[in-house]
Amino acid sequence: MVKMMDSPCPIARGIACFGDAWSLLILREALNGVRRFDDFRKRLGIAPTVLTKRLSALTDEGLLEKVRYLDHPPRDEYRLTDAGRDVLPILFMIAEWGRKHRGSGSLVRYLDSATGRDLEPMAVDRVTGEEIGSRPIQIVLPVAPA
Amino acid sequence: MVKMMDSPCPIARGIACFGDAWSLLILREALNGVRRFDDFRKRLGIAPTVLTKRLSALTDEGLLEKVRYLDHPPRDEYRLTDAGRDVLPILFMIAEWGRKHRGSGSLVRYLDSATGRDLEPMAVDRVTGEEIGSRPIQIVLPVAPA
Repeated sequence: MVKMMDSPCPIARGIACFGDAWSLLILREALNGVRRFDDFRKRLGIAPTVLTKRLSALTDEGLLEKVRYLDHPPRDEYRLTDAGRDVLPILFMIAEWGRKHRGSGSLVRYLDSATGRDLEPMAVDRVTGEEIGSRPIQIVLPVAPA
Repeated sequence: MVKMMDSPCPIARGIACFGDAWSLLILREALNGVRRFDDFRKRLGIAPTVLTKRLSALTDEGLLEKVRYLDHPPRDEYRLTDAGRDVLPILFMIAEWGRKHRGSGSLVRYLDSATGRDLEPMAVDRVTGEEIGSRPIQIVLPVAPA
């Protein structure tokens, strides 16, 4: 996975930072406002050793920031950075996939507060406004150094 | 991970299907047109045993379809289903994160063929057209059965 960070592919680089189930779920909780170790642990049912590793990795990658909120006894919490917050649209796109392809039974819903309607996340190109995948795309590989 | 599929959270359900690094990279290659075992293996540098497991899991989850393309000797290939193709916008959102937060050095670029400009994927709500995260959202948990 170390090699993935050196990949010229921006997808691989993102995956190298948060592309595993626990990291994504930790970020989901962080975006829900969770900051403390015990709260992550209880809400996710995750083993403490695994949680420690994932929080540490997400902090090293700059998606979370470890902040001391109590000196005696020493207690830290994990706050989202801008890079961590930018995972939000990725999680919403995953949610839309889940809603569409694994939507049976009871499901958590995300409503737009103003309209009261379910969100229907889709990815568009900020430049053209068109849905990603609806127009031909050209992939340009980096030029190898001479 | 089995439990995640029973979660009422559509994010967890999506993660349960393809939320690991190799699955996401395999889907990236599949979206690039790769279909055959040896091609996945060479392009990803993945161990054959791991690739076999991941292809099998993605097929079981209905993101890939195993199709025999040669009878003698028997040869199968893996084709994307609609559910597999719907991972495309997720990968583009990950790419945008990588471009923004891990963009140093040479990077693969995705251009809109018509305009020649780099794609700038963003997630919007199909209903309001507004960017996800820019408006207040209400989370509605499923009602527990009586």
